[in-house]
Amino acid sequence: MKVMIMGMDGYLGWTLSMHLSARGHDVCGVDNYTRRKTVKEVGSDSATPIKTMEERVKAYIKATGKELRFYEGDLTHYDFVDLVVSKEEPDTIVHLGEIPSAPYSMIDVHHANFTQVNNIVGNNNILFAMKKHAPQCHLLKLGTMGEYGTPNLDIPEGFFEVEYKGRKDRLPFPRQPGSFYHLSKVHDTHNITFACKVWGLRSTDIMQGVVHGVVTDEMVNDDLLTRYDFDEAFGTAINRFCAQAVIGHELTPYGKGGQTRGYIALRDSMQCLTLAAENPPAKGEYRVFNQFDTTYSVNDLASHVVKVAGEFGIEAKIWNIENPRVEAEDHYYNPDHARLPALGFRPINDLDDELRLTIPKVMKYKDRIQAYRGVIDPKIKWRG
Amino acid sequence: MKVMIMGMDGYLGWTLSMHLSARGHDVCGVDNYTRRKTVKEVGSDSATPIKTMEERVKAYIKATGKELRFYEGDLTHYDFVDLVVSKEEPDTIVHLGEIPSAPYSMIDVHHANFTQVNNIVGNNNILFAMKKHAPQCHLLKLGTMGEYGTPNLDIPEGFFEVEYKGRKDRLPFPRQPGSFYHLSKVHDTHNITFACKVWGLRSTDIMQGVVHGVVTDEMVNDDLLTRYDFDEAFGTAINRFCAQAVIGHELTPYGKGGQTRGYIALRDSMQCLTLAAENPPAKGEYRVFNQFDTTYSVNDLASHVVKVAGEFGIEAKIWNIENPRVEAEDHYYNPDHARLPALGFRPINDLDDELRLTIPKVMKYKDRIQAYRGVIDPKIKWRG
Repeated sequence: MKVMIMGMDGYLGWTLSMHLSARGHDVCGVDNYTRRKTVKEVGSDSATPIKTMEERVKAYIKATGKELRFYEGDLTHYDFVDLVVSKEEPDTIVHLGEIPSAPYSMIDVHHANFTQVNNIVGNNNILFAMKKHAPQCHLLKLGTMGEYGTPNLDIPEGFFEVEYKGRKDRLPFPRQPGSFYHLSKVHDTHNITFACKVWGLRSTDIMQGVVHGVVTDEMVNDDLLTRYDFDEAFGTAINRFCAQAVIGHELTPYGKGGQTRGYIALRDSMQCLTLAAENPPAKGEYRVFNQFDTTYSVNDLASHVVKVAGEFGIEAKIWNIENPRVEAEDHYYNPDHARLPALGFRPINDLDDELRLTIPKVMKYKDRIQAYRGVIDPKIKWRG
Repeated sequence: MKVMIMGMDGYLGWTLSMHLSARGHDVCGVDNYTRRKTVKEVGSDSATPIKTMEERVKAYIKATGKELRFYEGDLTHYDFVDLVVSKEEPDTIVHLGEIPSAPYSMIDVHHANFTQVNNIVGNNNILFAMKKHAPQCHLLKLGTMGEYGTPNLDIPEGFFEVEYKGRKDRLPFPRQPGSFYHLSKVHDTHNITFACKVWGLRSTDIMQGVVHGVVTDEMVNDDLLTRYDFDEAFGTAINRFCAQAVIGHELTPYGKGGQTRGYIALRDSMQCLTLAAENPPAKGEYRVFNQFDTTYSVNDLASHVVKVAGEFGIEAKIWNIENPRVEAEDHYYNPDHARLPALGFRPINDLDDELRLTIPKVMKYKDRIQAYRGVIDPKIKWRG
């Protein structure tokens, strides 16, 4: 299978490029380093010392004897997208090339618009290029469980049977996203649904839970590491807690810490994306997978990190701080997630075992986190 | 009430500016002439010979002794929006300032992206400027009934009670829009819902049916006419049929013509928008009105136009042509629309009586339509 990975330089993109290549697929990818630039803009850096894209690709080829092709370019420039898609004619495009941060999108009007325009236009350009050059191609698109918000009922995988005034239909499940970033993913969801319907494209829209961890089998040496963000904008809950633990910073759940979400380890995210890529939908089909392992409250997560950090001699403390976001802190949460297990998904580790891999790796880069200590506490507030 | 009308130069914007001013409100508005430019781009012009914005405002002041203030500027430039909102501090912003054409958005990737970016960024800029300078202001936003698509059940006004796996919640009704333009309105809907929730803004999101007609009481002389589009991109069903009738062109329903939508006369749209503006929602409330008078199939509409055109000595014929769009041509359609009648909305004319006003007005500009005869038949196809 020829796979093109949009956002090849990112946390997931680099990891997946190696993973799919190791599985024997022909992998190429695209990036314009927006992630590196935006993390720098918020005053932070990856905890792991990641190599340039050129160095990474060379190191991978050297370590494995396999090939990876990289194109530097901006997905919001249609001519560029047209060029790479027509040149490669991929069987699968994995679209991970979007701005992924809720807090970043909430900084001000300019960051809100930049996030939405970047994500929507990049995604539309991919749809139009597929229509023109690769109409059989499978678009495996990264959305987020955050598209759904926290309704007071179970969350189906994308669609559900509706009854209203005595009539029935199967409809998309309503989305109630909680930031301009999450909104951008909902906008993509609607645009992709339309493109599949009107042009007969095929797509899997992944509603992914929060990813954590930094270790996969393909990272056989430190030149092949993926990035690990811990700042308030790009560091997600578990990864941020691990970073806080290793530098002796309190773990800081926001508000009451009852906010419950689905979580998935990096290696399990790779397993799921691979299953989705290797089992494409039919022509014209738009399908949704809810992609996570287990749900936890933020307080639960912090407790798990405290426990496992203790096994490595770190005495971590939890200190709930004022919530910068506007979100329910105590709510029902029970999303369906049966479709990926039905394709064979089995989580490799439980949360504690995965933390036993993550924490020592993060400890190794403790000094790099310490140097950016000031970027962890939240300064971006949803109410402005 | 101080009202700011975004899109003051448009079909609805100019008409509403005069209508609200005549009701005694203090009216100002904004436009950057995108509608004039895009209609010119598709090779057409308004059937009615409309004046420049400066001439119109002068003519209105001369005819009524009232004031209208106009600002030329682009809603996608945040600094401009910030300036006008902070200067005027309106009680109500009526946002009609978006690209309104489904076919225009389907021309190619550039028109799809231009429509979505223009509409989303303009709308976001208004939300941020309201938050900063006019947090009590009521945003009366023009959406479209087309956001809902044609589900196989009744369509509630924005929200409905959902039951799934034995639990219940009140959720936004799922949207299934049918073009990149309609999608842009769905994206706005989600962005506004979020802004109301997080920032306590108030908004009425109008899901409007297709508007027709060109006569209102305020157009006391031809210097005060609003525009009347009839080309394939900007001319909507009834207005296009009237234009076809007066130049002896067949009326051309697309496909089987069973496509059913809600319709509303221009003067009734003014009545509804006024009711919504004069009865604002509570702080933090996001409410949805389905704004139309009656539903008709496209074939029904064509028959009504044939009948009334006959009263004016025009022998019009119907010729169903290949449908350029991807849409159901025979479907259930029965949207709820009780909220505006509950506020006092009563349609002024039935469809035939309104056509008896529209058709002679359009006949007056027959030569202007004849000159652009070639722009009526559809060339923009949804499948590309």
